[in-house]
This record gives sequence, structure tokens and C-alpha cells, in this order.
Amino acid sequence: MNADLARERSNATFDPEVITALLDGGKEKTARRRQLEALVARDPTGVFSNDDNAYLHRKDRHVRALAKFVRLVELCRSHGIGSEPGADGEITKSADFPTLMAAVADDIPTALHWVMFVPNIRSLCDDEQQAEWLPMCRDWKMIGCYAQTELGHGSNIRALETTATFLPESKGGDKGGSWIINSPSLTSSKFWPGTLGRTANHAMVIAQLIDGDGKHRGIHNFLVPLRSMDDHTLLPGVITGDIGPKIGLNNYDNGFARFDNVKIPRRNMAMRFAQVDEQGKYTKASMSDATSKISYITMMLVRAFIVNEAGKNLAQACTVSIRYSAVRRQGFDESSRRELQILDYRQQQHRLLPHLCESYCFFFTGKKLLDHLFSIENRIVSGSDDVLKTEVADLHASSSALKSFTTTVAADGIEDCRKACGGHGFLQASGLPELACTYLQNPTVEGDNQMLPQQVVKVLLKLVTAVQSGDADAIGQYKRCDSRYLIPSLKSILGGDNAEECRATNEETMTDIATLLAAYRHRAARLLVGVAAQIQEAVSEGAAMQKAWNDALIQMARVSRAHAMYLLLDNFATSLEDERQSKAGSQLGPNEIEVMTDLARLFGLYWLEREIGDFLEDGYLSSEQAGWVRSGVLKMLDNIRPNAVALVDARDFSDFRLKSALGRYDGNVYPEIMKTAKKDPLNQTEPGPGYEEHLKRLIVGGVGAFTGTQSRL
Amino acid sequence: MNADLARERSNATFDPEVITALLDGGKEKTARRRQLEALVARDPTGVFSNDDNAYLHRKDRHVRALAKFVRLVELCRSHGIGSEPGADGEITKSADFPTLMAAVADDIPTALHWVMFVPNIRSLCDDEQQAEWLPMCRDWKMIGCYAQTELGHGSNIRALETTATFLPESKGGDKGGSWIINSPSLTSSKFWPGTLGRTANHAMVIAQLIDGDGKHRGIHNFLVPLRSMDDHTLLPGVITGDIGPKIGLNNYDNGFARFDNVKIPRRNMAMRFAQVDEQGKYTKASMSDATSKISYITMMLVRAFIVNEAGKNLAQACTVSIRYSAVRRQGFDESSRRELQILDYRQQQHRLLPHLCESYCFFFTGKKLLDHLFSIENRIVSGSDDVLKTEVADLHASSSALKSFTTTVAADGIEDCRKACGGHGFLQASGLPELACTYLQNPTVEGDNQMLPQQVVKVLLKLVTAVQSGDADAIGQYKRCDSRYLIPSLKSILGGDNAEECRATNEETMTDIATLLAAYRHRAARLLVGVAAQIQEAVSEGAAMQKAWNDALIQMARVSRAHAMYLLLDNFATSLEDERQSKAGSQLGPNEIEVMTDLARLFGLYWLEREIGDFLEDGYLSSEQAGWVRSGVLKMLDNIRPNAVALVDARDFSDFRLKSALGRYDGNVYPEIMKTAKKDPLNQTEPGPGYEEHLKRLIVGGVGAFTGTQSRL
Repeated sequence: MNADLARERSNATFDPEVITALLDGGKEKTARRRQLEALVARDPTGVFSNDDNAYLHRKDRHVRALAKFVRLVELCRSHGIGSEPGADGEITKSADFPTLMAAVADDIPTALHWVMFVPNIRSLCDDEQQAEWLPMCRDWKMIGCYAQTELGHGSNIRALETTATFLPESKGGDKGGSWIINSPSLTSSKFWPGTLGRTANHAMVIAQLIDGDGKHRGIHNFLVPLRSMDDHTLLPGVITGDIGPKIGLNNYDNGFARFDNVKIPRRNMAMRFAQVDEQGKYTKASMSDATSKISYITMMLVRAFIVNEAGKNLAQACTVSIRYSAVRRQGFDESSRRELQILDYRQQQHRLLPHLCESYCFFFTGKKLLDHLFSIENRIVSGSDDVLKTEVADLHASSSALKSFTTTVAADGIEDCRKACGGHGFLQASGLPELACTYLQNPTVEGDNQMLPQQVVKVLLKLVTAVQSGDADAIGQYKRCDSRYLIPSLKSILGGDNAEECRATNEETMTDIATLLAAYRHRAARLLVGVAAQIQEAVSEGAAMQKAWNDALIQMARVSRAHAMYLLLDNFATSLEDERQSKAGSQLGPNEIEVMTDLARLFGLYWLEREIGDFLEDGYLSSEQAGWVRSGVLKMLDNIRPNAVALVDARDFSDFRLKSALGRYDGNVYPEIMKTAKKDPLNQTEPGPGYEEHLKRLIVGGVGAFTGTQSRL
Repeated sequence: MNADLARERSNATFDPEVITALLDGGKEKTARRRQLEALVARDPTGVFSNDDNAYLHRKDRHVRALAKFVRLVELCRSHGIGSEPGADGEITKSADFPTLMAAVADDIPTALHWVMFVPNIRSLCDDEQQAEWLPMCRDWKMIGCYAQTELGHGSNIRALETTATFLPESKGGDKGGSWIINSPSLTSSKFWPGTLGRTANHAMVIAQLIDGDGKHRGIHNFLVPLRSMDDHTLLPGVITGDIGPKIGLNNYDNGFARFDNVKIPRRNMAMRFAQVDEQGKYTKASMSDATSKISYITMMLVRAFIVNEAGKNLAQACTVSIRYSAVRRQGFDESSRRELQILDYRQQQHRLLPHLCESYCFFFTGKKLLDHLFSIENRIVSGSDDVLKTEVADLHASSSALKSFTTTVAADGIEDCRKACGGHGFLQASGLPELACTYLQNPTVEGDNQMLPQQVVKVLLKLVTAVQSGDADAIGQYKRCDSRYLIPSLKSILGGDNAEECRATNEETMTDIATLLAAYRHRAARLLVGVAAQIQEAVSEGAAMQKAWNDALIQMARVSRAHAMYLLLDNFATSLEDERQSKAGSQLGPNEIEVMTDLARLFGLYWLEREIGDFLEDGYLSSEQAGWVRSGVLKMLDNIRPNAVALVDARDFSDFRLKSALGRYDGNVYPEIMKTAKKDPLNQTEPGPGYEEHLKRLIVGGVGAFTGTQSRL
């Protein structure tokens, strides 16, 4: 064990195991997770080893990842481990299976089968369809993907070009009628769906429905067989393939698919909410309000998971860079005559410790978001009618703002952590390049981070209107909404009484969480009112709404960030307050609460410092207060520094999962770097590859003699 | 040709060829560059094709890159193209050879031979040594690398562990004496030097010199043969190898080396500025003041190149993302009933156009920096004694601040451009992943961007002291210094008369370059004084200097950024002013000057908006003025938008160099993406790799049947 790491750990003021249990949801869950992780890491076949990942050609990594998955299913079967999809396996409630997938610590090409394909069957197919298909999914006879995005069409799903045209039996369809799935153009090719390229034998294809009367009925889902379930050969009219190497996630066979008038049975249309009968007559089910809300919630759950994953990924990067910054020494300390631990440099603390705060902060919000979504779902299912459209829309705004902000912060933060490791962070052996590059999908998928803010603002502007109107009923609709915190500030600002100002009187009161929350609340409200005013003014001056809206997009991004930051700090603070009051389910002792509170305060202060212009611009914060923010940040860095290593230890990433020479628990960094270097395929021959064929000709002669620099070209 | 791109081009208000010539340094140079690029792109051997880069295993890419280089030398030899290193080939003044290297558009493992190894021989070896070694370098008999960094030691070169111990003939040394080069520990292993791993047969090794009396004389350079020049076998006692895969630059064999008491001749020590005689007696040459300045300037030249390369790399990313944003359509336009060009969305403009400004901005500063360095060099060489230490130190501060800021902006900006391409930016076929990842070395090498600011501040604080003292002589030393712009603001602030404030009275005056420069000047001076005050106060309160300094590091980073931004805007503005006044060498017409001026204004306004807290905090800017900054940004986006495509065209990156399906000149994006996808090795068999061995067992059976979810673990 590295002496510096040992000392760091012995100096910690709290018990990391207590925090680990909080993160896992209880001590028993921690124990179960560790048991499952050991099952993978110690599997006698050795197939789960990630030691050679960086040396494999992409093709070989893909094949290896398939081997891992097959072995994983085998383990599940032999140990009776649930929940596999199709059993009781809704992704939101199962535990063992996702834990095992995470324990593999490598991307598995089949992951989207149960993350997207199976949930899609569950939510959009009718009971009979589910009864037929889900068991095949559970048994991996049917391996599916979710095929929405097209080569030329991303977020704007209205523009999708793939068609599904009804063909009655009388005109050549099969018994009961058929659909003809067709890709009318190059840009209509399905492109990007994970698992589609080489692994899936079925796709849930999103296509424009054309009914028996030739009417266009908008986009619907169709289950299209791609490959034979017997020998995996492509079915007639289907072309699929992998879309090629990417910046990350290269185990996955993200795919393309073209359909050349592929005939599928009528009943392969997902028929829970819309049906087409044997004559091609289209009817839309009168979807109950409850059902439509539930399917909306399912969509939001994905974003809640993304928020949680943002925290986990960032924590993983923090673990590597904070441990390494405790081990690495550079620059002489005049008093000790030794080199200094990098972690004692202010700029290194200022770079890494805020990310540590963010990673914890995202955990609490991810949890709150999930709890809120489940509680709404339960209230709907139990027939309560107090769930208002406003609440669901508001949660859509929250989850959009949070998805956009947390994934941006995590992507940038992981890269920051990588850079903070200096040269060695550039090595794949550090584990950070693959973590960083693969994470980069997140700012783009499930709503591009640049597109989401306008959806957030669209919802929040309704609250502005409600407050502006002074209509108590309209305002009352917000009683369970995340955005209700805005109401007092909105009233104050819209009342022309924009007299809110920060009440901090010194550094100590400036670092109070209540002070910080008030600042974030005011900022969010002020920016929101600003956007509303900007649009109103432009329209009143004769601008078309579309232009006014477009011109406000840059400010909308600020509103969305401001909203997310308030929610994050508030969720962090109230979670800790619950712990402090020993509410049901609380798990932390006073020492843990103290260090977590400092994390929350640094989160608030750090972002306040970074975006201080927002708070200074309208005089909410004074120049003197801005100074207290800066000194408060230094103070929190001092508070957190002694616990930094223990705080990343508490995330409990095993060395198997970290895959990092720099982040090892024992700090034995340099021998590990050298060991990994020596394994590179470039080092397996002496002299190295390319010498005989090329380099020798250069060194020994054969490329012509040097004859001066007089160009003859 | 894509119709949107054609329309964009026909709408441009200026002639891109005029700007291209400016960037190249004249029309003749543009023509020569294109001729050399064609020589590579149309080479009949086809070895230069980059089409398969993303599909090759790293080992094969390395070998391919060696093949490219050998062919390149062959072309040089047959066409008499200079300047190869060792001929007249100083990297700063040659043209054809670097142009050819860039034309290859792929990383060449031998690049550091002439970028670092040869210049090192030129600057640190005596005439006799140069006469012996440079011809061998020119003929590629000797291929060298620069071996400084060790596994455990990066920036702090004082801590290097490798030793070179003098061994006289009498004690077993060779005739004339020898050096014993030794790696005493694992952490002393040389680690990272480019070309060291597999390609180089010599290394310039930086080691601690121990002379004949056993005295430690600090670090010196030693030419150590690594491999036989006949058959490339390792010489006794030497172990080298590649350090393994990295986040980028994987063609390069960055290497490690251990030396087990390797004996080399005494005269293999670089002896221009220090000598050791046959008895092991060490003498340091009385280095003339001029010589020491020149060798200092050589170091700064590298940073000037980095600034210039930051602009080029960012411009390449802008070319891809701006062209693609003109081609890509998404979201319905209510008036035209078509999808909108992405480039018409405000947030896309706000994301991309500032990077376009930065890329041009960096060009002008890179050029000014080089000109300044060459002019100092000339003044020294011509015996002028008006070059003061202050000027050289000041240029060190400028080049450090600029290196840190421009490479940070370029690294983040390239990644921004990648994200702005949505999902397709995640594809290697977009060209952006490799560009982004390989660029990521730049924030770390040649002075980590986080470490440089304190060097900047160390220099600038002397100016504060000079102004504080009011000593006219001391201030007079700054007459040719970049930092002299700070003097008026420093006087005003230090005089207690911190009454500077922004004089803009409306949006129009706010967007004046003079207004912006005044704001940046004030900000830089205020932050600098703030750091000086913070350190003085801490020390006067009894803090040790080291602690006071450490606590100020975060603020030093802000000072360094502020300094860099002023210089960048000022260099941009004065370059355009020279063009406007048709000074010698000016090349632009009024239309080009107009569009470039808008770029300079957007650069100033955009960063003012991003860091507006710095300007609001002390009341320099009012809230109303902040509003004009924001509306000014929108105005500039409007001004630049119609010329966006022509402005990236003007950078004249051929499709061969861009290597991007999204950035093609003809905008024929979608067929190209599909074409590259189909070439992936995963698509060369049907079914895909891994089916027979693994997937089949899962689908057809063989992993055990599903038996419920009752865990038996």
C-alpha cells in the first residue's frame, strides 16, 4: 500500500462504509453488489478480464464483448439470478441483472435489448402481443433493438421517412393483412440504433403509418424481423450493418438498416394505443389520461437514470484522479524538502474537488427524481386523480434541465479529471480515455443538451403567465411541482419590486446553504422573466414568434442551467436535512453529515463563483459578497481536502471496475503503468513492426541520396 | 454540389482566395502549398490514402505511417524538395518540408526527429559535434528523439533521476573517457518521448551529470545510441519499447527506455555550453548574454507554433461543423414548410461562430509572436544591445499565457464543434474524434496549461512593483514589452483612483474594438493588482510565501487568461489596422477587412459575455452595458452568418486533409457516411464475427434454460 494513500485514509474524519451503504440503498445491497461483482471478477473462465481491452482491434473487442454477455447469461441461469428482461424484469425495479451488467465494466452489445426494446414492447404492445413476444425476449431467442433515428433525421421524429403501408390480403397481403416496411431514400436508412448492426434479429421500427385508405397516420412502432432466429441470416429485403468506428462505445454494433418493401404481419404493429384491422381501418384507442401519463413517465425515467449515471461516471473519474493526485509528487516543498503531493496545490483542488461534489450531488437528485416519478406512477395506478397535467409537464421540464446540465458537467468533468492527471492521463492505461470518450454519447442522446433548454423554458413560461395573471387557481396547480420554488421570486420581480438581494453579511453567512439557495432561486427567476420579456417585446415590436423564439435560444440555455442548479442544490440540501433529522431511511452519522454538507456548500459556492456575472448583473450580489464567495471556496477546499481520498473510496469502485493503472486502491501506480506498456503489441517483436518493410530502407539506404534542396518540382 | 452550400458560397460578401493568401503568406505560397498537397494526395503508390485509418489496428497504423514517411523522403529526394533537417532545415524557416508533412494529414512517428532532436543538436552541441552528427541526421542514418520526461517526473526537471557518471580511461572508460548512463529506479525510466519506442536509434538523454570528482553538476544532454544503425537491434544495456495506446496520436511510438550502465564516449555529451575534459573536469562555458537569450528564444518559438497550430486545428473543426450545419436540416420552418438549416438556429451560431473567430484570432497572434521573436533574434545576432532581459522575460510571459489559453480554447472548441454535429459527430468518419483526441496532448505538453499561469504572474508582478515604485527607469524597461499596455490601468488602480469605467453609451459603441480593448485592459490590470494584494496581505499577516503563493494560484489562472485575451484582441485589431492602412505586406481588400473586423468584434464580445462577472464585479461595466454586450453578440452573429461557409472555405483545407464525411467541400454528406460505414471490418462477413462462437449458443440454446428468478447464489 502506498504510504500517502494509507495516511490519507487514516486521516479521514468519517466512515466511508456508511456512505457506501447510502449510495447502494442499504448495507445488504452493498453486500449483494459485492457478491455479484466477485462472481464476475473471479469467474474461472477468465472471459471477463478487461486487461487486454486497449490492445484489441475493435472487431475482436466486439466479439469478446459478445462472449462476455453469453457467459453472463449462463451465470444467471446457473445461479437463478434475476431479473432478466421478460421475467419480472422492468429495468427500473430489477436489481441483480443491472448490477451484474455494471460489474462486467465493459460495454455489452446486447444492453439495449432490455433497456429499450423490451420496455417498448411492454408499454406499446397489447396483452396478446406481449404474451407472444416477451418470453422469446427473456430466452434471448428474440434479440431486439429500437430503430428510430434515420441517417438524415435525428431529434425531429416528425420528419422520419420510413413507411409502413397497409397491404390487405386481397391485394397480396398475407392472411389478416400485412405491412410493407420501406426505406424510400438513402436518408431514410435507419442509422445509429444500438445492437442493430450485427447482433439483433428483430427491430422495433418507427415508421410513418399509411392505412388501408392511403391515409398518413403519423409515426407508429412495428416489430420487424431482421434475421433468421435459426441461423442469423438476413431476411429478404433487409440490409443491416455496423455504422463504423466511433469516438467511444466501440463494443456496440450501432447499426444501419434499409428495408426494401419488407412484408410483415399486420399484427406486428404495436397495438396497445392504436389499431389497424384486417381491412386496413385505423383507429386510435381512446387512451385514458392515466395511460398517457404513465407512458410519459416511462420516458422520463430514462432521464433520471442518466442523471444518476452522470454522477457515477464522474465519481469514477474522480476516484482515479484524486487517488493519483495523492500519490503523485511534484515541485519541492521548502519545509519538508520533498516533492509536494499534487493534491496540495490549490489549482488541483479547485479542479478536482468540485467534481467530487457534483458526483455526490447528482446522486441525491437522481434518487429524488426517481422517487418522484415512482410516486406519481403509484398515485396514477391507485386511481388517485390528484395528478395534474401541470405536475407531469413540470417534471418533464425538471428532468430535461437536469439531463442537459448533469451530462454536460459530467462530460466536461471527466475530461478535466483526465487532464488533471497530466501526461499519464493521456494513456489508455489510466482508464480515463475510454471513460471520457464513451461517456461523450450522453450530451447528445435522449435529447441533445442544446435542444432541451427550449423544452424547459416552454414549460416554465406557463408558470410566469400564471404568476403574472395572479390567478390563484392557476398558481395552485403547482403545489407539487419542482418549479414552485420560483413563485416568490417571480412575484417579487413581476411586481416590479425586484428588490431581492443577497443578505450575506460575511464569509460565514455567505457559505450558508440557505444563502446559496436564495441566490440560485433569484437567478433562475430573473433569467426566466428576462426571456419572457425578451420574447414579448420582440413580438410586440412585430417580430414573428418563430424569430423571437429563435433569438431567445441563447438565454434559454441559461435559464435551463439556472433551474437545474437550484434543483440540484435543493435536493442535496433537503436530503441531508432528512438525514440530520433521522427521518425514515436515514443512514448517516454526524461525521458523514458534516462532510456531505461541506460538499453541498462547495457545490453551491463553486458554481456561484463560476457564473458570478449572473448574480452581479442586477445587483443581487455585491462586489464584497463576491469576495466572500471566493474565500468561501478556499475554505471549503480546506475542509474537504483531508477527506478527499476517503470520499472517493466511499464510491467503492473496485480495481476491476476502474481498469486504471493510476487509480488503483493500493496506489502502486508506476509498476502498473510499466507493466501495461510492455504488453503492447508493438513491443512483441524486436525490432518492432515496420522496420524490415519500411524503416530499414530509410536508414540503410534505398530512398535515393540527398542531393541538395534545389527544388526540381 | 449540395445546393445549400452552393447558395452559401454565392452569397458571401468577400473573396475567400484573398484570405487564403493572407493565411499562407502570399499567393505564391498558396500555390506552392497546393502543389505539394497534390504531390501527396495524387501519389501513384496510394500509400498516403487515409481512407482506412479508422479501421486499422494501432499496430498496422503505425507501420502504415512509417511507410508514408519513407515514401515522403523518397519524394523529397527525387524532386529535390527541401528543407530536410540537417540541410538548411531549421524548422522555423523551412517551408516545403513542413508543408509536405502537413499534407500527409496523418501523424508521422519520425516527426520529432526534426522538431526536437535536430534543433537540440544545433543549439546545444559544439561545432565539431554538429559537423559529425547533422549529416547523419539529414540522411536518416541517425534517427533521434528527445528523452527528458521520466515515468515519475514531468515538469519538474530538477527531479530527474537518470545519471551520467564520468568514467576516466584509467578506471575502465574508453580512450578519452566515457559516460555511464544509468536508470537507478523504475521511476527514472524515460517515459513519453515521441519516436523513442520503436523508431529512433539515438536519444538525446537528459541526465544528472556526475563529474570526475563525483560532483553533481545538474542536468545535461547526452547523445545515447539506442540501436544499431545497421540492423536496428538494441545495444547492450538499453531497453526501449512503446508505452501503449493513448487517447490520441496513436501512430506515434511514444516510448520508454531504461539504461543499465550504458557506456558512451565522453564527447557524446552536448558540449557547447559546458565541457568535461578527459580527466573528468567540468567547466561551464562563460555563456554570452546573447547566446543565452537566443537559446531562450528557441524555446519560445515552439510556443508560438503551438498558438498557430491551435488556430489551424480549431479552423479544421470549424470547417467540418459549419459546412455540415449548412447542409443539415432539422425542425420545420413555418414559412418555408421545409426543415431549417441547423446553422440558422441561434444556439448553433452562438456555439460555432465564436470558434471561427478564435481560429482567425489565433492566426494573427501566432504571426505577431513569431515576428517579434525573429526580430529580437535578429537584433541580438546583429549585435544590437537594446534587447533587455525584461523584454525576453515579458515575451516568456506572453507566450506562456497564450499557449495556455489558446490550447485550452482549441481543445474545448474542437470538442464543441464535434458535439455540434450531433450524433454523426460521434462517428470516426466525421473526422472530428481523431482531431479532437489527438489535439488533447496540447493542453498538457510544453508546459501544462494549469502550471503556466504562475510563470506568467511571476513576470507580470515585476511590472506591478515597477509601477508601484514610480521608478521611471524601471518602467522604461517595458517600452518594447507586450505587457506595457497594462501601465495606464495599473497607475490608475494603484493610485487608489480605480475610477476606470466603460464609456460605451449604446450597443454600437459597446461593440467598438476600442471599447472592448479598454475593458480587457482594465480587467487584466485589476486582477493582477488583486493577486499582488492578496499575496502581500497574506505575507504581512504572517503566512509563509509558499502558502500565500499557493492560495493565489486560482486567481493567477484568471490573470493569465485576462492577459492572453487582451493580447489576442489587440493583435487581431492592430493587424487589421495595418491592412486598413495598406501597410507593407497588406493583402486584404475592404470587403475582407470588414468581415475580419466583425470576427474580431465577436471575439471580444463573446468572451466578454462569457466572463462578464470579471467586468461587473468592480463596477467597470454596468448592467445596462452588459445588455448591450449580449445584443451586440446577436448582431455580430447576424453579420457573420452569411459569410460563415466562405470563411471556412478560406482556410482551404482540402477533403484529403479534412478526412471527414461531414465536412466535404461538395456537401455530399449522407452517401459518404453510408459508404464509410459499409467498409467496417465488422461488416465483411455475414453473419457478423462472433455469431458462430458465441451468439449462436445464446439464441439457439446452450446456456441453460430460464428457471425463474429465485437466486441460488
